[in-house]
Amino acid sequence: MRILSLFTFISSLALFVNAQRFVRFISTDNREYYGDAILPGGTTDAAKSTHAHVIKGDILGDFEITDEVKKIKKLLSPLPSERVRTVRCVGLNYVAHINETDSKIPKWPILFYKSFTALNTPSDPIPVTEGYQTQGDFISKMDYETELVIVIKKKAFNISDDEALDHVLGYTVGNDVSHRGWQIERGGIPQPQYSMGKGADGWAPWGSAIVSTNIIPDPQKLNIWTKVNGVMMQNETTANMIFGVKHLVSFFSMGTTLMPGDVIFTGTPSGVILGKANPVWLTDGDVVEVGLENVGTCTNTMRHT
Amino acid sequence: MRILSLFTFISSLALFVNAQRFVRFISTDNREYYGDAILPGGTTDAAKSTHAHVIKGDILGDFEITDEVKKIKKLLSPLPSERVRTVRCVGLNYVAHINETDSKIPKWPILFYKSFTALNTPSDPIPVTEGYQTQGDFISKMDYETELVIVIKKKAFNISDDEALDHVLGYTVGNDVSHRGWQIERGGIPQPQYSMGKGADGWAPWGSAIVSTNIIPDPQKLNIWTKVNGVMMQNETTANMIFGVKHLVSFFSMGTTLMPGDVIFTGTPSGVILGKANPVWLTDGDVVEVGLENVGTCTNTMRHT
Repeated sequence: MRILSLFTFISSLALFVNAQRFVRFISTDNREYYGDAILPGGTTDAAKSTHAHVIKGDILGDFEITDEVKKIKKLLSPLPSERVRTVRCVGLNYVAHINETDSKIPKWPILFYKSFTALNTPSDPIPVTEGYQTQGDFISKMDYETELVIVIKKKAFNISDDEALDHVLGYTVGNDVSHRGWQIERGGIPQPQYSMGKGADGWAPWGSAIVSTNIIPDPQKLNIWTKVNGVMMQNETTANMIFGVKHLVSFFSMGTTLMPGDVIFTGTPSGVILGKANPVWLTDGDVVEVGLENVGTCTNTMRHT
Repeated sequence: MRILSLFTFISSLALFVNAQRFVRFISTDNREYYGDAILPGGTTDAAKSTHAHVIKGDILGDFEITDEVKKIKKLLSPLPSERVRTVRCVGLNYVAHINETDSKIPKWPILFYKSFTALNTPSDPIPVTEGYQTQGDFISKMDYETELVIVIKKKAFNISDDEALDHVLGYTVGNDVSHRGWQIERGGIPQPQYSMGKGADGWAPWGSAIVSTNIIPDPQKLNIWTKVNGVMMQNETTANMIFGVKHLVSFFSMGTTLMPGDVIFTGTPSGVILGKANPVWLTDGDVVEVGLENVGTCTNTMRHT
């Protein structure tokens, strides 16, 4: 009896330490669960996981990773939209991307927001409704932006760079889907604002897993890439970010409370369609895979609706 | 008995029709209530109300205005921050304001967001934390922007201008508090974004009452003004809005779901400090009153914290 208790204790300790890849999923019983993804051999992409340890409780608060294992039928975004109070995004945060868009290196992080309704699962279609489709001379300039996404664990207000990671649950990958026509040409000249060209429903796929900071102690050395219909389009490293994770969290907390569940899209590397000499914009049926090393992928299909 | 029932029925009908000025308040029993403000004689400003009919239920769904009257101890913002999923704001929506800021008339509404943590009550201080105070050569350029605020009642997605008002609960007044240094000088050159200069906690006082669309069938003919320490600074009419309420709601619903409780700040008229030849920026202790005809006022004090 004592031996069993000790075993249970050690086992649950081990499971707790293994709280690494937070996912939310529908299981074969058609119920929704939070889980710690069990990776298949040879990959760190939770999108390929078929099973997960069930997590009981609140991954933004008190929770327990149980030894109950469930089969994954469909991976959802790691938090439901109701739990994400704000979606912050950073513009122009990689030098090569700034160069390809004829921009200048900003001295301070460029902040804009999307509505939470932009959040999408790692696998569902990205809807392009009529107002965002080609209309006469106004071209549907749909583009991808693969980004490292920070997920806030606990409230942050006026914190320093050194304190930032204490407030971070982990990292995932996301796609800051962008309509360059509504973002730039119609985005509010002479005071361009990004929100209208980036904020439609489903224009922020994210997931599958939030990978905890104990698995990724240094988020500034991860490969980040995009494939469209299997062809590599973006391929850089988060080492090239101008403003890193710690500073973004601390900067955005200036006089402003970051809430548990808030997400920060940290900007995209070079290789977007906007930067091409002869751009071929995303269209109905194109499959976009966004990927981040040691985190995973989202794979979504553009869908004119 | 029959007569009494008939009286009760007629009385409750009358109360229902009077669902006009939705407020939220702390009463003398120190409990929080939703209410229909009872206006004192000679004013339509719910900020001056001392009593309200208690509303039971959800003002964004099913509710009942009861004949129970409570004394108001303190008026809060009309919805708690948890009920407001997104705070949309419009830039450059009055011609005289565009002229005073050397801008151009936009062809499409200019959209940006604030975090919900910016929301503030109609009477609490507006905090200016250290990062937003004068630091050496970087001046704390705090400014007001009085705006008509739309409150969404039911989901809107791809709706037309003609359908827009069916989705609106009513209107209130708000202050889009702005730090011109962080908005313009440091707001993300060469792609200026407004969010950092306008989004700190408490930088969006709003209320006191959401005045229903049956009281204000036409929101485009209301006087709108600002007083600082009692001196009139802005004084125009919503008739001067470039994009009116109906079009803003329909435009922002393009491929995007507007949710019950979402608020839209509709842009400010002329008279902001930014437009003055010799600007005197708001500072610690300044009292800012923002007002909208037939709606009311918010009165908040700038507070360096």
